[in-house]
Amino acid sequence: MKHLLTMNDLTTNEILEILHTADSFAKGDSWSPEQKVYATNLFFEPSTRTKTSFEMAERRIGLDVIPFETGYCSTTKGESLYDTVRTLESIGISVAVIRHEQEAYYNELKDKVNLHLVNGGDGCGQHPTQCLLDLLTIQQEFGSFEGLKVAIIGDLNHSRVAKSNLKALNALGAEVIFSGPDEWFLNEETYNYKIDEIIESVDVIMLLRIQYERHLSLSAITAEQYHQQYGLTIERENRMKKGSIIMHPAPVNRQIEIADSLVECERSRIFKQMENGVYVRMAVLRKLLESQEV
Amino acid sequence: MKHLLTMNDLTTNEILEILHTADSFAKGDSWSPEQKVYATNLFFEPSTRTKTSFEMAERRIGLDVIPFETGYCSTTKGESLYDTVRTLESIGISVAVIRHEQEAYYNELKDKVNLHLVNGGDGCGQHPTQCLLDLLTIQQEFGSFEGLKVAIIGDLNHSRVAKSNLKALNALGAEVIFSGPDEWFLNEETYNYKIDEIIESVDVIMLLRIQYERHLSLSAITAEQYHQQYGLTIERENRMKKGSIIMHPAPVNRQIEIADSLVECERSRIFKQMENGVYVRMAVLRKLLESQEV
Amino acid sequence: MKHLLTMNDLTTNEILEILHTADSFAKGDSWSPEQKVYATNLFFEPSTRTKTSFEMAERRIGLDVIPFETGYCSTTKGESLYDTVRTLESIGISVAVIRHEQEAYYNELKDKVNLHLVNGGDGCGQHPTQCLLDLLTIQQEFGSFEGLKVAIIGDLNHSRVAKSNLKALNALGAEVIFSGPDEWFLNEETYNYKIDEIIESVDVIMLLRIQYERHLSLSAITAEQYHQQYGLTIERENRMKKGSIIMHPAPVNRQIEIADSLVECERSRIFKQMENGVYVRMAVLRKLLESQEV
Repeated sequence: MKHLLTMNDLTTNEILEILHTADSFAKGDSWSPEQKVYATNLFFEPSTRTKTSFEMAERRIGLDVIPFETGYCSTTKGESLYDTVRTLESIGISVAVIRHEQEAYYNELKDKVNLHLVNGGDGCGQHPTQCLLDLLTIQQEFGSFEGLKVAIIGDLNHSRVAKSNLKALNALGAEVIFSGPDEWFLNEETYNYKIDEIIESVDVIMLLRIQYERHLSLSAITAEQYHQQYGLTIERENRMKKGSIIMHPAPVNRQIEIADSLVECERSRIFKQMENGVYVRMAVLRKLLESQEV
Repeated sequence: MKHLLTMNDLTTNEILEILHTADSFAKGDSWSPEQKVYATNLFFEPSTRTKTSFEMAERRIGLDVIPFETGYCSTTKGESLYDTVRTLESIGISVAVIRHEQEAYYNELKDKVNLHLVNGGDGCGQHPTQCLLDLLTIQQEFGSFEGLKVAIIGDLNHSRVAKSNLKALNALGAEVIFSGPDEWFLNEETYNYKIDEIIESVDVIMLLRIQYERHLSLSAITAEQYHQQYGLTIERENRMKKGSIIMHPAPVNRQIEIADSLVECERSRIFKQMENGVYVRMAVLRKLLESQEV
Repeated sequence: MKHLLTMNDLTTNEILEILHTADSFAKGDSWSPEQKVYATNLFFEPSTRTKTSFEMAERRIGLDVIPFETGYCSTTKGESLYDTVRTLESIGISVAVIRHEQEAYYNELKDKVNLHLVNGGDGCGQHPTQCLLDLLTIQQEFGSFEGLKVAIIGDLNHSRVAKSNLKALNALGAEVIFSGPDEWFLNEETYNYKIDEIIESVDVIMLLRIQYERHLSLSAITAEQYHQQYGLTIERENRMKKGSIIMHPAPVNRQIEIADSLVECERSRIFKQMENGVYVRMAVLRKLLESQEV
């Protein structure tokens, strides 16, 4: 495997292998490449979690991370992403993690560069390491995916998470159902459950972040109305089945997608997901660096 | 000690212990934690000195520093400081240094996070490591604080330095007096000396930075008038007593608080203070990391 | 040698010595200072190549690099460059690489600071490590400079590269000729060749970057017209002599200075130049750190 750009790059076996490696890192295993490896993180959109998580993962496996300030680089002089990445390759970078607002930005890069690319999010497209950390969190909780019922709730249209997760969860044997405002639905074929119909039967509630500033302001609904109609209220959490868990990719809009007091409740795995993000990124980087394809 | 947020967190004995450790670092001692420790610096206000000084202190004791660009993180998407810090904790950060414009921002964090916080300045509130580096500079010069007379001069209202230093210097046995424009005075109880009354008798002149852009422009006084009435002119420096020193937290407004040519004169300890900043920060980090409280 | 500020700081022998060291790094040699050395990079203008290249060079010789965000430092509060550099020196920085829009910014620093300065570009002035990497690329290609004919083509007025390269290439025995729009010419004495007159006889075509946004928009010429009259078209590349090479400091304006498909053609050394940039910077840093002058 030369790059990790979308979940489609991974077979089900490769997914399970990455989860296995990640879990061993979670349990304290360590690994480092034999030679010095230089990495960099190009985040053209604001990020706390994903960027610091990749930085941490890179450091933990002993990579040397060259800083790259996207607000202060030559793309501001009109340089293309391709020329920027080829430049980094020329100075000796072997791994580039990129987040970019343009969907599928990697198509102009993937066959022409001689370093490893990891997609840290492309517009409303994919975010494969987020998907992998979600899978690791579910696997740690339930042991396997077979027969699990996972509800993905919220802004399906603009979510990188929903698209990546649906296919992977199905392939691993879980059932995925969706819920949220009609206008944000992926396509006509997806059935849109009411949250109150499903809250008592699902094993995993996976809430999506609302692009609050962009979308709620454009619709007739207020934040409070959203919370009551589509959000995870305290009342709904009480009705969740024994052993079921709550997930959210964060940053959370507290009191909109989820009641403020539930963010760190017993069922919540929100901060656990962030911890797992480091382990799956370590596992992905290891897989790329051990691969013979460069 | 879990956090260092204000000078009130420290007993007089703890202050002396930190100064002792810092002085041993100044003399070439070294120390590192036994395990890998990850730190990060969250500076929500511009800073050269304090930020690079913490970075240097962290590196010198062997910490791995994860970069954090505040202008490009999820707080720009509305994430709270609490959620940001909990995120960093989840990915494995053990020490967070924070500068934030909101006074006492740490109150919403200190009892709820499981990492060490160091306050790098909160609005017009506290700046404990600046206070400690001032104390170290005085102690190195005079051996002890007993009987010293320290004048703090300038913008007392907006100064993080004045508030932190007054109490600590008194506790250590020094006398502190104040001087500056009447309108910038802390409260009615503090006596406001004229600089010409005290210049010949004090051991330490501690000048404060004027928030020039904000305050001089609002008052009837010009920069030149300020310098003549309240600043350290060449003529006044000539009248200072033998062995007395000049301090300033910097950045200096040259020719306003202090004559340009005095910034690096023989009495000036301004750049010495910056050097000492690294040693006290190393000492503070060591104290936090050796503590059992996490 | 305490600083490297302009190519005039170097004798011809020193240039050859740096190229020799750089070439040994290119061939896999390594070197590190015996003691821990702290460096920082102050880039007050956007940069991808030069900044990441210095970062990489510093890491490769084992320096510890303290990050410095110029958009978020105390110069935004009015602090002078001198006070900023003295601050960095006080906290323990030994090497500062600076890019600044002000021509000859280093004159106010060079005799007063006790750290090593490396000029990473000053306005339209000098850019000595760019010159050195150009020289290394030519030397690797042709073995020596004696008798080579080098054409520098483009925006001579605003080019840091042209000024640095002319003198050094002449001193090393190469002939340098110029070509470009009349209005961008250095001075009356320089003869301005038409590109079609010289394309078949030169060993090196060194294209300069056009400050497109600033200059083409102000002139009567379009990008397409520039390319046809002054640029390296596919037709012209076909007429270049056997063994001759193409260079460009980048970022490239594709299809203006050079046809898009030529950027990575067989003659192009554009990405090779970037690779060599790391080696010459390693060699310069080594020379400064081995020097007794501090």
